[in-house]
Amino acid sequence: MEIKMKVGLIGLGKMGQVIGYRLKQKEIEVIGFDINNEAKQEAQKIGISIAANLQEIAEQSEIIWLMLPAGKIIDNVIQELLSNLKTDSIIIDGGNSNFIDSIRRYEYLKNHNINFLDCGVSGGIHTKDIGCSLMIGGDKEIFERVENIFKAIAMSNGYDYFGQSGTGHYIKMVHNGIEYALLESYAEGFNLLKNGHYKTLDLEKISNVWLHGAVIRSWILELCQNIFKTDQEFKNISGKIGGGQTGQWTVEEAGKQNVTVPLIEKSLEIRKWSQQTSGNYTTKLIALLRNQFGGHEVEKLD
Amino acid sequence: MEIKMKVGLIGLGKMGQVIGYRLKQKEIEVIGFDINNEAKQEAQKIGISIAANLQEIAEQSEIIWLMLPAGKIIDNVIQELLSNLKTDSIIIDGGNSNFIDSIRRYEYLKNHNINFLDCGVSGGIHTKDIGCSLMIGGDKEIFERVENIFKAIAMSNGYDYFGQSGTGHYIKMVHNGIEYALLESYAEGFNLLKNGHYKTLDLEKISNVWLHGAVIRSWILELCQNIFKTDQEFKNISGKIGGGQTGQWTVEEAGKQNVTVPLIEKSLEIRKWSQQTSGNYTTKLIALLRNQFGGHEVEKLD
Repeated sequence: MEIKMKVGLIGLGKMGQVIGYRLKQKEIEVIGFDINNEAKQEAQKIGISIAANLQEIAEQSEIIWLMLPAGKIIDNVIQELLSNLKTDSIIIDGGNSNFIDSIRRYEYLKNHNINFLDCGVSGGIHTKDIGCSLMIGGDKEIFERVENIFKAIAMSNGYDYFGQSGTGHYIKMVHNGIEYALLESYAEGFNLLKNGHYKTLDLEKISNVWLHGAVIRSWILELCQNIFKTDQEFKNISGKIGGGQTGQWTVEEAGKQNVTVPLIEKSLEIRKWSQQTSGNYTTKLIALLRNQFGGHEVEKLD
Repeated sequence: MEIKMKVGLIGLGKMGQVIGYRLKQKEIEVIGFDINNEAKQEAQKIGISIAANLQEIAEQSEIIWLMLPAGKIIDNVIQELLSNLKTDSIIIDGGNSNFIDSIRRYEYLKNHNINFLDCGVSGGIHTKDIGCSLMIGGDKEIFERVENIFKAIAMSNGYDYFGQSGTGHYIKMVHNGIEYALLESYAEGFNLLKNGHYKTLDLEKISNVWLHGAVIRSWILELCQNIFKTDQEFKNISGKIGGGQTGQWTVEEAGKQNVTVPLIEKSLEIRKWSQQTSGNYTTKLIALLRNQFGGHEVEKLD
């Protein structure tokens, strides 16, 4: 029996808006909620109707998509929804939650006859038009019931079900760990190109040639090229890199399992160092890259 | 005045054959030489005529493309060519030479009225059909005289001139440094996915979802997927990673210039460690990736 595809979208920030937009494009009804007025207004602009409160969301939709920061807020929202949700409703957490928390929430909700899927979402704000990459964990039967939602949000071939509860957020956690190290790898190279033996190399031209046939071509390198088109000096920005939580979890989890991840660990250290010192050319480029894909703000220097 | 486009290709190994093949495809004449009989036979199969010796190469072509291992052999070959080359001939070094050596050779050859370009080549053996990425340094006027050759070898938009002698090989050196760190970054992540909290995740499916929309999508990730299609256990291969020279140079050069490249440095250390210990799951994947893009052999375990 197919569930009525009306999604209650909680969290209308940058990525929440992407999710809402893509669902609307595929003619899936969306009712949204956020505590932030600006976010609500932005969401309304893309045709998302706004609920007055969480109760209204829970009453109107049997599929809830959470797009919220990791942590206690997820538990609070789940708690508030619980009394108003119909039995057998489905909550999907599309944020960067810790996979251990997701397993706990899955079990807690199961006891209340509510289903829970954990879904890692990658691709950043560009995905509005091209679609995201989605990694899903939980009960397979539940995944199948709402597969059309994932299909609507993802790039073609860009979603898959990976197994028991937790696997979606676990895979996304490792994805982010890799991402930390990739960003640092490119940024170190460009730092050496800019501040090494030669000082006048054109980094935009270098990125361009590398994007056409080189072993290291990638989407992150495309973002480097975008950045270098307008600035290669980075004189007026801080090199503080934001975030750090999923990388921290990756390193901790690797430690628990006796798996060595020296580059991911080093990238995390550098990120922390950058927050205390405002970093260097390398970390400035990383901050700019995070701004490119995630819309994360870059601190300006006066 | 356009030079007659006949290229003397010295070094008919895997990448030499790619260069020769692409030149032939664009109807540029090629005469090749190698000391290895098998390489000569392979080259003949793709229509490259073979010279009896270096003297014949020098007499028949005013453009020489060297595709040789870095080091003394390049100086030896140049020395042997020198007495038979016509004045104003052009030698292009397409190998992974140290940029400081390239600057020295440029100057030495200039004194003998021979031109020299340094050309970094990336893309590996797959580039036979799709074209390489080329980074060229030397005299601009000389670059322009043989631009058609670079055009023939490169992917569309995949070549550029970067400035004075040395810049081509310098940029390629940094490219390789970045490559070391990228390979290690992905391999650490897949090691954690394979040997961490979950042991049965399908790495091929994960690569596939990441390739469709995720921030970390790249050509190296495509190669990971290729590998995982046939094996995710790596039980019968050694984790020794070959190579190491260009990474070593990158780290040394960064040190000289007071530029920190901690991840590139760490990747180099891990590569050396793998050679002494036969490594782990991470370095096995790196060895397999190097095999994918460069055809570098992977040691089998009995």
